[in-house]
Amino acid sequence: MNLIFIVLIVSILGLLFAAYQLYLILKEDDGDEIIQKISNSIKKGANAYLKRQYKGVGIFFGLMFVIFLFLSIFDYVSIFVPFSFIIGGFLSGLSGYIGMKVATNANGRTTAAAKKSLNGALNISFKSGAVIGIVVVSLGLFYIALGYLFLNCYYNYLPEGERVVEIASNILTFGIGASSMALFARVGGGIFTKAADVGADLVGKVEIGIPEDDPRNPAVIADNVGDNVGDVAGMGADLYESYVGSLVSSCALAVAAGLSVKGVAVPLLVAALGVVASIISTFFVRTKEDATQKNLLKALRRGVYISSIFVAVGAFFIVKTLLGTENIGIYFSILSGLLSGILIGFFTEYYTSDNYSPTKKLADMTKTGPATTIIGGLSLGMVSTAIPVIIVSISVLLSFNLSGGSNDFNLGLYGIAISAVGMLSTLGITLATDAYGPIADNAGGIAEMSNQDPEVRKRTDALDSLGNTTAATGKGFAIGSAALTALAFIAAYKDSIENMAKSGVYKFEFNLSILNPQVLIGLFIGGMITFLFSSKTMDAVGRAASKIVVEVRRQFKEIPGLMEGKAEPDYASCVDICTKSSQRELITIAVIAIATPIVVGLLLGPNGVAGLLAGSTVTGFSIAIMMSNSGGAWDNAKKYIESGVLGGKGSDCHKAAVVGDTVGDPFKDTTGPSINILIKLMSMVSIVFGALILAFGNL
Amino acid sequence: MNLIFIVLIVSILGLLFAAYQLYLILKEDDGDEIIQKISNSIKKGANAYLKRQYKGVGIFFGLMFVIFLFLSIFDYVSIFVPFSFIIGGFLSGLSGYIGMKVATNANGRTTAAAKKSLNGALNISFKSGAVIGIVVVSLGLFYIALGYLFLNCYYNYLPEGERVVEIASNILTFGIGASSMALFARVGGGIFTKAADVGADLVGKVEIGIPEDDPRNPAVIADNVGDNVGDVAGMGADLYESYVGSLVSSCALAVAAGLSVKGVAVPLLVAALGVVASIISTFFVRTKEDATQKNLLKALRRGVYISSIFVAVGAFFIVKTLLGTENIGIYFSILSGLLSGILIGFFTEYYTSDNYSPTKKLADMTKTGPATTIIGGLSLGMVSTAIPVIIVSISVLLSFNLSGGSNDFNLGLYGIAISAVGMLSTLGITLATDAYGPIADNAGGIAEMSNQDPEVRKRTDALDSLGNTTAATGKGFAIGSAALTALAFIAAYKDSIENMAKSGVYKFEFNLSILNPQVLIGLFIGGMITFLFSSKTMDAVGRAASKIVVEVRRQFKEIPGLMEGKAEPDYASCVDICTKSSQRELITIAVIAIATPIVVGLLLGPNGVAGLLAGSTVTGFSIAIMMSNSGGAWDNAKKYIESGVLGGKGSDCHKAAVVGDTVGDPFKDTTGPSINILIKLMSMVSIVFGALILAFGNL
Repeated sequence: MNLIFIVLIVSILGLLFAAYQLYLILKEDDGDEIIQKISNSIKKGANAYLKRQYKGVGIFFGLMFVIFLFLSIFDYVSIFVPFSFIIGGFLSGLSGYIGMKVATNANGRTTAAAKKSLNGALNISFKSGAVIGIVVVSLGLFYIALGYLFLNCYYNYLPEGERVVEIASNILTFGIGASSMALFARVGGGIFTKAADVGADLVGKVEIGIPEDDPRNPAVIADNVGDNVGDVAGMGADLYESYVGSLVSSCALAVAAGLSVKGVAVPLLVAALGVVASIISTFFVRTKEDATQKNLLKALRRGVYISSIFVAVGAFFIVKTLLGTENIGIYFSILSGLLSGILIGFFTEYYTSDNYSPTKKLADMTKTGPATTIIGGLSLGMVSTAIPVIIVSISVLLSFNLSGGSNDFNLGLYGIAISAVGMLSTLGITLATDAYGPIADNAGGIAEMSNQDPEVRKRTDALDSLGNTTAATGKGFAIGSAALTALAFIAAYKDSIENMAKSGVYKFEFNLSILNPQVLIGLFIGGMITFLFSSKTMDAVGRAASKIVVEVRRQFKEIPGLMEGKAEPDYASCVDICTKSSQRELITIAVIAIATPIVVGLLLGPNGVAGLLAGSTVTGFSIAIMMSNSGGAWDNAKKYIESGVLGGKGSDCHKAAVVGDTVGDPFKDTTGPSINILIKLMSMVSIVFGALILAFGNL
Repeated sequence: MNLIFIVLIVSILGLLFAAYQLYLILKEDDGDEIIQKISNSIKKGANAYLKRQYKGVGIFFGLMFVIFLFLSIFDYVSIFVPFSFIIGGFLSGLSGYIGMKVATNANGRTTAAAKKSLNGALNISFKSGAVIGIVVVSLGLFYIALGYLFLNCYYNYLPEGERVVEIASNILTFGIGASSMALFARVGGGIFTKAADVGADLVGKVEIGIPEDDPRNPAVIADNVGDNVGDVAGMGADLYESYVGSLVSSCALAVAAGLSVKGVAVPLLVAALGVVASIISTFFVRTKEDATQKNLLKALRRGVYISSIFVAVGAFFIVKTLLGTENIGIYFSILSGLLSGILIGFFTEYYTSDNYSPTKKLADMTKTGPATTIIGGLSLGMVSTAIPVIIVSISVLLSFNLSGGSNDFNLGLYGIAISAVGMLSTLGITLATDAYGPIADNAGGIAEMSNQDPEVRKRTDALDSLGNTTAATGKGFAIGSAALTALAFIAAYKDSIENMAKSGVYKFEFNLSILNPQVLIGLFIGGMITFLFSSKTMDAVGRAASKIVVEVRRQFKEIPGLMEGKAEPDYASCVDICTKSSQRELITIAVIAIATPIVVGLLLGPNGVAGLLAGSTVTGFSIAIMMSNSGGAWDNAKKYIESGVLGGKGSDCHKAAVVGDTVGDPFKDTTGPSINILIKLMSMVSIVFGALILAFGNL
């Protein structure tokens, strides 16, 4: 119990630290009048978007609250579900909201700092990223710790053994609110940002021939708003959900593994250790005044490595003290997760950075036009799935066996779950290096629009391109941890159904053999559903983007003097279109994610649901990596050509690369990163609706 | 026993019928001198390719023969494996070879007939397709029937019960030769045909601006050769393998299902019935002299429907007579397979034909350029996976339960296997409608190159475009049957390992739960391997195509008067480059397909292998459908625009559509159709190397 208080305190300290950092950032120079004006437009647009999103989401959450309340009356879901749904969703949304607030306040300040020095700009943008990262993990930890304490009070009347069982089975449902919110934030933000980006490019760059971030382009503010609502708010909600998911699944599996309350405490303490490590390591992200790009990357990496070493050392003592030397294998499960995360990050960089041969070769393929560029990028993405799959496979095998899975199956499953916690333990700092990217990107846009000295834009560009690399790494990391967490969820799902079947009126025994037709069909549908989801998200971007195209064309035609820079475009209308259409598109996508496991469950029973979850995890993992890496490589191949290779900007090669980049946009920023949420949301829905499926899908 | 003789006789009759039909075709007018000259060039090129391919394949087969012989000495494989490997491979290759011979003799004759009438041209091209279809199924049936009779003699000393067990377990290994050959033929031919096609288009259409099939293009003969070696020889070997695979797997599962020799006879008799039905239905493919395009499609469809009805009625009596009314459910399994095939075909057409909205909408997306065209096509392909997956899922569920799987698990698995036989029973006629496409395509090319009257080209174009639709249908059909057969193979794999473990020194019990880490990792690797395989095959096309691009550019530069049509290009050099590079690229791809199950087996044991097979089937099914349908839709969207919509040929929309079509080429003709072979080859390798994996992978 005292240990959980430590976790709670760490999370509050984390929030205080973030608040103090934010205070320091806000004290910085927020730039001249034009910078402020543009920055305010972006702020206003992002606010408008989030307001509308939260309104839509509010309706959905209200509706679900009533449904859950209704179901809880008939005992189909636990009484905590409606409330944890609301609270979890609120905190996930809050993570995104705070992230967006920080980012929109930091972008103009970064531009202003870039007028003076590169390092000043790095300092502000990275510090802001750190605030976002620390807030996300602290809020997640706060929620779980508080939830634990609440359940502990609630079940006070039970003896400790039974109490932990109740806590473990209920804490699992704490993820569904976050998962739902993450889907809305990630997919909605993803559609917004890419619709604006693609729409702005298609008319601006391709039809009219004005450069990127040109203030005459009516979609340019929407594009910058998109960075904040997609890459910051969306990612914040997404990773909050991953973090919470990995924690609740390992807590839930701890009891089945026979580790009782100590097994619940370990993941929470490792996470708390990670928060502390992340905070400390932010101070190491410093560099000399005359730093090169390489130095900058090294500085960021140093932060990640230092916090990893902290966790690697500290976790040893946590496991040894709480679980004893006989369970020290669990420490190695944590370590294998931590290492896998770093390795996946490294290989993501290998495939998407123009420092390495894959992206260089892709750039070379632009010589034979857009078709070969597309084939090359798709092929690159597909081949890049191999190493992450092998890394995750080894990690699963190691964390299962090292934790003692060969003797006690449930201990092995706990090992897999806690390896995901290990991977995500340094999320605070990883997210910091990731969230800093869109801030730098925005700063660049503001520099361009406010007609700063080219030197300023060069500095922000250096930061932005660095951000591309860290963003790709962050995505690989999110997907890798999702695969491990999803596996833990399947195990937790089986556990929770078995517990219900044991105590309830509906008898059920699992037959999870892949030759059981129910499981087999579940696998097929799981594989297919990721394709369907991918298709729907890409379509949504396409439809929203085409609306932007129409609007931008209209403004250029109807506003006299716009092309000559004498009149101002109507930025707000583009923001509005993106906002509205992304919300509308969300509906079908959310229905697919939520209805599929219920329908499959009702038709094929709990075996079919387990198959569905496994199938979507297996196929989704590969698709998500492929999409993120294809997209990242196309983007960087284009940037590589823009750096002057193969004829540079405006050459035929560049045109082909732009086609690749445009195809890659929804790949890497909408569909790819949404798949991991799809997988986990389907798991959460399966768990929460488990009793319903057991009652009606088991006929 | 007498029943098997009937099967053997039917297969021989089928071959005789095909020979007679071929004789009739060869009697037809083979056109004027130019037609003959071009047709001969294509023939020569195709011969040169197959000669070289068979040389390379011969080395591989020789090597594998020695390895299998060696393994059989130590009892790791049965003594029949080396021989059935050679014979199966030979017959699969022969199917392809005969197909190619027929096609290259029919193409010029089709052009000549098109000078007179559309119907004459349909008659020749369809008759040739029918010859190919009937040869493929007859050879497959001949092989299995003969193999059965041979094994029956060999095990003559055993009592009937034991004899059938031995036959069933050995007949399973009869597929590996065909699978290996199919991989070479399909992938090698696929690389050849698309390298030539893409290479010819990139220089001819895009750089130099000469039309398709222009005789000045040095790659034009290679392009036409490619149609024969890829779409005819490759597809022949592929479907021969599917056919044999579905038959051997249901024979093997019959014994475990307790149906003994009668259970073995049913699939063979249904297949024989299908051959007869296909032959009869070819006579119904007739149409009036003034037929429209719609009439033509109806005529082709009539053939498929009539033979389906034949099988649907006849199979009832076969099942009832042999297995009795208590097993009549097995008939419904057959029926569900038959129906699923037709439904998958229909929905494939829906997604890829420009008669329906998906392809029309895709054509519309070319308005915003190549990037949206690509996104739209990928999205279309992805969404099109949903219905086939649902159809196959229902078919699995129905065939499992209707055959009695809820009472006897093995009976259910037999039901799944025999539903694949049902789906493929009408292969003779389906293949006829499919193989006729490339012949018509070639005929069009010859018409263009020999400067025929535009009316001739118009007639062959009508046939060609019809062929595109039937080709897409055929691919959906091949993939659907592959999914069912692959499931049967997994079941047969489990059976065969269990039999070995029962009798041998290596004890083993399966734990195929999806939560078993070995199975889980197998699933992940299986999913990933289809992505890796897709990447490698697309890369291979890209690399080979870029060599063609270099060669075509060189010829236009170095051969004076080529552009003006005064000099003749060196067609043979392009054919030669395609031949060489497709063979070289094959090596890595074959190694992936063959080594993966062995490596996974040695590292993760038989459970891991089963996971691998399930994972690759689940993911591969969706990817294959996506690729075939995306490719088909891009192709037809382009054709739709060329018909005069959206600005027609040469417009910006058309240019964007050409980019889509070029990306789609390797999708639909190389990678997509190869995946089903990958899945089945991995299954075959797992089964054949089962004992080795059991001995060394189970430590």
